[in-house]
Amino acid sequence: MTRPPPTAADVDAARTFIGQHLAPTPLVASESLSKRLGCDYRVKCESFQPVGAFKVRGALNVVGHLSDEELARGLISASTGNHGQAMAWAGTRFGASVVIYAPAEGANPAKLEAMERLGAEVRRHGRDFDEARVEVEEVARREGRRYVHSANEPELIAGAGTMAVEILEAAPDTEVILVPVGGGSGAAGTCLVAKARNPAIEVIGVQSSAAPAVWRAWTQRRLDVEAEMGTSHEGLATRVPFQMPLQILWRLLDDLVLVDDGEIEEAIRWYARDARLVAEGAAAAPLAAAARLGERLAGKRVVGVLSGGNLPLDYYAGVLAGGGDG
Amino acid sequence: MTRPPPTAADVDAARTFIGQHLAPTPLVASESLSKRLGCDYRVKCESFQPVGAFKVRGALNVVGHLSDEELARGLISASTGNHGQAMAWAGTRFGASVVIYAPAEGANPAKLEAMERLGAEVRRHGRDFDEARVEVEEVARREGRRYVHSANEPELIAGAGTMAVEILEAAPDTEVILVPVGGGSGAAGTCLVAKARNPAIEVIGVQSSAAPAVWRAWTQRRLDVEAEMGTSHEGLATRVPFQMPLQILWRLLDDLVLVDDGEIEEAIRWYARDARLVAEGAAAAPLAAAARLGERLAGKRVVGVLSGGNLPLDYYAGVLAGGGDG
Repeated sequence: MTRPPPTAADVDAARTFIGQHLAPTPLVASESLSKRLGCDYRVKCESFQPVGAFKVRGALNVVGHLSDEELARGLISASTGNHGQAMAWAGTRFGASVVIYAPAEGANPAKLEAMERLGAEVRRHGRDFDEARVEVEEVARREGRRYVHSANEPELIAGAGTMAVEILEAAPDTEVILVPVGGGSGAAGTCLVAKARNPAIEVIGVQSSAAPAVWRAWTQRRLDVEAEMGTSHEGLATRVPFQMPLQILWRLLDDLVLVDDGEIEEAIRWYARDARLVAEGAAAAPLAAAARLGERLAGKRVVGVLSGGNLPLDYYAGVLAGGGDG
Repeated sequence: MTRPPPTAADVDAARTFIGQHLAPTPLVASESLSKRLGCDYRVKCESFQPVGAFKVRGALNVVGHLSDEELARGLISASTGNHGQAMAWAGTRFGASVVIYAPAEGANPAKLEAMERLGAEVRRHGRDFDEARVEVEEVARREGRRYVHSANEPELIAGAGTMAVEILEAAPDTEVILVPVGGGSGAAGTCLVAKARNPAIEVIGVQSSAAPAVWRAWTQRRLDVEAEMGTSHEGLATRVPFQMPLQILWRLLDDLVLVDDGEIEEAIRWYARDARLVAEGAAAAPLAAAARLGERLAGKRVVGVLSGGNLPLDYYAGVLAGGGDG
């Protein structure tokens, strides 16, 4: 039943398919952030995607390649937010009904409302994303819906990788790509593309130190780790590492950096003030990592993936008001 | 002494010159805003310019065409913010010292600090922008500096117009352009370009109803109007209308719409939540106008100029937190 991970050729195919539905997102140079960081810093603005996050790439590439029979049976996923919105969007696009399971507690209400607005049926279950995910596998069997995992799907990882294709088309001289790691599909897709184009391009993943499941699995080279999960940035929140992205990350990722929630909030403020961009926590993590890496990036051409901009306005306002002089 | 206003050919020349210094800013389609407004709404993201505002276009086109002798004597301007930052940036680029006069009261401290960070000397004078401007004309004579007016400069208006060139290159089928009006340089430059390309393109200016100087001058077709000035959005705040932009706006502008500060704040929140863009008050005014125009834009291909994203984070946080369900 387990399918092999995707290849760089699969990402190229995904790019052709996705290009029929989504315009490339801009790669924005920031003079202020570059000055702050001491490198040439550009931002891949995935927040401008239809659902406000890169996840729409993977969902589109999965759903767009399902059979008519699978679409008719409907789809089901577990999600804390952006994957669910992306599935809802792609399901509507291809005429499939979509059910999303989210944790009963602590889910971002703005994202859940957005899923419903985009046409999905949202069901709440369990304490966290991973408990919702276990339930969804059971329900998928019962209701006959195609379960679309948020990471263990070759087309999903290939779709996510299309953002790296666009990055290297717009800036072929990129030396470092910093990409947030939640489940790892974005980082895995980015690795496939960057290493096929030019193995010298460094791909560095960034995870919250409060939810370091993938970091543990990656550094220890094993999947059976259980990490505590205390980050407030649900885009980075997963307890259980996923097999398919990790197979790719073990092989191709150059480094995986942890940043804490305070650094992430500071980076959210930098994005707003210096680059006039709204970034959710996971999306700001690469900028926090760029500040932490300092000398290691000095003078280099760096791209930070701003993976999404979905956060409740009142929470966002609190983070913006929370800074010092910065 | 008075020079004639620029032409569409001057904007084309400015585009060639500016293209050597500034990358085109992205034109971002927003599915959420389009759904909200009932039209095809795209955003011209001038907030991604080096100083976070379209004003850098005009300043660059003025300063880059001064003689070595003028550059050596130095430059002087009056500004509440973005024009001053743009002058500081362009002065540094071409090795000229820059003095900026700002009102002693009520100026946006984030913008004044940014001017200084960009290398300008900031001096405070008068109750508002117009009093600072009168003083600066006197000081310019005394110190022998080239006075760069924030609107009555053909190269400045031509430079501002380059944003419309980029809009129509990226989206030649644009039917309506909504552009904020402060002094009127951006709207005037936009009119020159749009009407030369295709007279059927509607250009609609947007001003704050709390500072309607240009609106009065435009609707009454005379310059000697004095308007009260109560807007909290300093990018839209000018009491005295300027001759050169108005000469162009009387001839070419299709309409000039007023929006109130409450509508502007709502539009700031929509930009953050629906399009993940940080917009200052003036920059959000076109979105507020699009909502107000409603039926008149229905189904049309509309571009809103997001003219800048410079606002203090604590003030921005207050606006974001101030919304209802929206």
